[in-house]
Amino acid sequence: MLDEAGNLDNLRNAASGGTAFRGPMFMDSDVYKWLEAAGWELGRSPDPKLSGLVDGVLAIVAAAQTDDGYLNSYFQVAEPGKRWTDIPQGHELYCIGHLVQAAVALSRATGDERLMRIAERAVQNAELVFGDDRRIDVPGHPEIESALIEVYRHTRDAADLKLAAFFLDHRGFGLLGGGRFRDPAYYQDRVPVREATVIEGHAVRATYLMTGVVDAFLETGEEALLAAAERQWRDMVDHKQYLTGAIGSRHFSESFGEPYELPSATAYAETCAAIGSFFWNWRLLLATGEGKYGDEMEWTLYNAILSGISLDGTHFFYENPLSSRGDRVRNEWYTVACCPPNIMRLMASLGHYFATGDAHGVQVHQYGQSTLIHGPIELAVRTMYPWDETVRFEVRATPETVWELALRIPTWCEYAAITVNGATVEFEVKDGYATVEWLWSAGDIVELRLPMPVQLVSAHPFVESARASAAIVRGPLVYCIEACDQPGDGSSTTTLDADAPLRPVWRDDLLGAVMTIVGSGYSRPLAGWDGLYRRRADVSDARDRIEVTAVPYFLWANRESGPMAVWIPVER
Amino acid sequence: MLDEAGNLDNLRNAASGGTAFRGPMFMDSDVYKWLEAAGWELGRSPDPKLSGLVDGVLAIVAAAQTDDGYLNSYFQVAEPGKRWTDIPQGHELYCIGHLVQAAVALSRATGDERLMRIAERAVQNAELVFGDDRRIDVPGHPEIESALIEVYRHTRDAADLKLAAFFLDHRGFGLLGGGRFRDPAYYQDRVPVREATVIEGHAVRATYLMTGVVDAFLETGEEALLAAAERQWRDMVDHKQYLTGAIGSRHFSESFGEPYELPSATAYAETCAAIGSFFWNWRLLLATGEGKYGDEMEWTLYNAILSGISLDGTHFFYENPLSSRGDRVRNEWYTVACCPPNIMRLMASLGHYFATGDAHGVQVHQYGQSTLIHGPIELAVRTMYPWDETVRFEVRATPETVWELALRIPTWCEYAAITVNGATVEFEVKDGYATVEWLWSAGDIVELRLPMPVQLVSAHPFVESARASAAIVRGPLVYCIEACDQPGDGSSTTTLDADAPLRPVWRDDLLGAVMTIVGSGYSRPLAGWDGLYRRRADVSDARDRIEVTAVPYFLWANRESGPMAVWIPVER
Repeated sequence: MLDEAGNLDNLRNAASGGTAFRGPMFMDSDVYKWLEAAGWELGRSPDPKLSGLVDGVLAIVAAAQTDDGYLNSYFQVAEPGKRWTDIPQGHELYCIGHLVQAAVALSRATGDERLMRIAERAVQNAELVFGDDRRIDVPGHPEIESALIEVYRHTRDAADLKLAAFFLDHRGFGLLGGGRFRDPAYYQDRVPVREATVIEGHAVRATYLMTGVVDAFLETGEEALLAAAERQWRDMVDHKQYLTGAIGSRHFSESFGEPYELPSATAYAETCAAIGSFFWNWRLLLATGEGKYGDEMEWTLYNAILSGISLDGTHFFYENPLSSRGDRVRNEWYTVACCPPNIMRLMASLGHYFATGDAHGVQVHQYGQSTLIHGPIELAVRTMYPWDETVRFEVRATPETVWELALRIPTWCEYAAITVNGATVEFEVKDGYATVEWLWSAGDIVELRLPMPVQLVSAHPFVESARASAAIVRGPLVYCIEACDQPGDGSSTTTLDADAPLRPVWRDDLLGAVMTIVGSGYSRPLAGWDGLYRRRADVSDARDRIEVTAVPYFLWANRESGPMAVWIPVER
Repeated sequence: MLDEAGNLDNLRNAASGGTAFRGPMFMDSDVYKWLEAAGWELGRSPDPKLSGLVDGVLAIVAAAQTDDGYLNSYFQVAEPGKRWTDIPQGHELYCIGHLVQAAVALSRATGDERLMRIAERAVQNAELVFGDDRRIDVPGHPEIESALIEVYRHTRDAADLKLAAFFLDHRGFGLLGGGRFRDPAYYQDRVPVREATVIEGHAVRATYLMTGVVDAFLETGEEALLAAAERQWRDMVDHKQYLTGAIGSRHFSESFGEPYELPSATAYAETCAAIGSFFWNWRLLLATGEGKYGDEMEWTLYNAILSGISLDGTHFFYENPLSSRGDRVRNEWYTVACCPPNIMRLMASLGHYFATGDAHGVQVHQYGQSTLIHGPIELAVRTMYPWDETVRFEVRATPETVWELALRIPTWCEYAAITVNGATVEFEVKDGYATVEWLWSAGDIVELRLPMPVQLVSAHPFVESARASAAIVRGPLVYCIEACDQPGDGSSTTTLDADAPLRPVWRDDLLGAVMTIVGSGYSRPLAGWDGLYRRRADVSDARDRIEVTAVPYFLWANRESGPMAVWIPVER
């Protein structure tokens, strides 16, 4: 796709002095996201074919870089001589950020330092331009901040951390903005980073910025940065987040809306914004050790992010609405193709978010089939989670010492249970984690049970789109109803009988094997509705009792395109 | 306000060669809207003080006009030498349109032709610039089209009609647009006027354009124009109109949304867009004689327009949402002050929309205390409508001939009744009108009864904000509930018992004397809601039965600012 869309040709033209440029000015960033994904993939398992592709793209990138380290095919090919002239929209620093993250991935995962050398030269070139004693400006699209801190962790070069801090310190003074619909709030440039109390503006920009803010806290320990991030996180989860974890409800400016402005059908809910939230929550988890951030990562991953990709992994949603009248299809690629490679790099690196280790032991944040290694400790994790509620840990290797196994207990789970070698273990949940302190031996088995009753969720009465409605959840999965699973031809409305039982039904034959939820409700024909409003007395209340079948939201629109809803009106 | 805000100073500076300009580039239009309102007012009753003010403003306008007829204080004062360089946003033709409409009002209502001479010179100046053999362009904000046809009715100068047709004929070919969020659809410039099937873009622009389109049909008889207007009207009322009659649901671009995109709390619903709809419906009524357009005018007037002005007439809403959490107040004036003088000119001319006359007799479209004169016929209309359901017509003067009295029977009214001199008259409703053909004598009394049971209205299931909810209507009035009329301190939600009776209760002591609607429902505290989502099982269903009191929507926010809702969730 990168070849077809012109991303690689742009870089080739930068090297050869060609003048043809295709696509938006941030085309390079998708190449770097692919390199990042490839780096993580190669770290998981060597793959000569993929290595060959990486070598080829690396050569193209290396050739494109100018002698002074500058690298941006748009400004080299399409607008030569205009470097650094459009900081709000130019995306030069954004592209360097993604270059750095790709370099970090290749280096960490495979030890390949070739891209890191390119990235360092690009960063050094930027460091000559921006700084307190040089040019004072902040990038229109955050990304470089977190990337500079990542590269600082690699290089320990104070200049990298200093430039990240510079971009954070000067944000919030209205350097950006301008244009009728592009106010500083769009760019998170209305209020200094440390003073911001609400999350606002373009949702990807906002979450990428917050990712950098928490990264800066992690390196500097400056509490004001963490406090600002926690305030904005609180505003997001309390006022501006869809049930799926998706954020950025407005199409206009791809931005956060007002508190409670969470329409279903017209939700923007960009896949990349959910990924940004995932990155941000990971840093907050690292900074605080609080399980609520791991909960957010899990919920956002399974619902808001995974909905962005088709079951076969080849088609992508940019927008992730919570209801549809049937006109939505995932596309193979986009002119602004930020989402597909963003999913790619997240999926390729997903294992790195599962667990952490420290002197106390191992902390498990996400549950899935995996092998967790921390020094001499090796744990094999076996589970069908989130379909199944049991996660089994086998101690494959351990030193003969006491250490702690900390397991995140999601807030949706009320009656978690843990056994060690078959015996029930008492535990308290602290900061969202159950901790088992034990003198471990190889062969020990820990079983975590996270009961997943089907539950109905209500939304705050101010959320117009969810009023008098309920959503079905089970474990970390939000469900939806698709018309093709209900009786009839899709030209009727479905309500849910909130008093009828809801039962999980495993279906081998559906959507690659899936846990459905079956309940009861009512169907009413839409046929009587010609216009918008009718006297209630004239609206027929004739309804048919039907069996209602829900599927996980992330799997929607994988069959024929048809109506879908997360929020289902309830009645008795 | 025009003096304070700088509108008159801008014109004074245009005359004197001053260089100071205040406000947006279309400031002149508000002066013309005021002159139009003053003209209609003086036509109703002479007022020496108002005449003096008009003389003063006319002198300012006359002095500002250049020798060649050009008149626009912004381009004369702030951007000299840049006439006609910014057709999409410059508003020069828009301002001339309002100048013409003010001239027409003064001429028609008072016979004062002074402003007409200024307007004609301004139009002639524009006619030298635009035309098929001159410059081909269309104005960014429609208004001139209808105005040119108005002035053509005055002058019978074919050039005026020709220029109006020119602006209509060249619209829809993408001459406008540009800028990231300003596509041709925003300007109704995506599809040629005769081919458009949907109403889209900026709602005031759209309705003003349609007003001109129907005006053009009225003069040319070209059916394609009427058909295009009828198609777009159908799209508006079937898919894109609030229950109040308000239109333009999106803040961004002040535009129509997608079908069914009608959020309550974040509704834009600009007062001017409702006024534009009123103008458009009037032309459609004149063109077709169909009462549904009179129905729309009445409904829009009483709900979407009247909500834009405070009970004391001094404060104005620009936006007219259908729900509020309590943070809305009408302002005395706005930087973009289009709405207040737009209400002013509509209110001042309102009587002209009440009735029409032709060779068959008199057609009454709107009901209110009034005197209707058509040649030798004079009718006195006495009523407390819409509080009261009876409208009484007394024939004050009539020729000794048979003529028809046609009375609009609103679609909301099921059992209208008519008596002549106390005797019931049988009638059929045709195209929305009941016609009484009679040999009239002075002193005859016609009584029209339009029963107004309190009704509950439902919205199409696709309207998210109204799901599982009902709105209260009585006659042409939409009601709302304001927190200050319900028990408690406003920190609770209110639902409506849809099976409980709803009764009209007259209240002399409230809002200047008003018909309230009293029903029954339930109150639940909001206090339990910290965040956005909760398990339904954890949400207390404790509710208090309360008496629910609704007031007409147009009267909302006339007391302390507090929560308000048109759509009320229903339960049993």
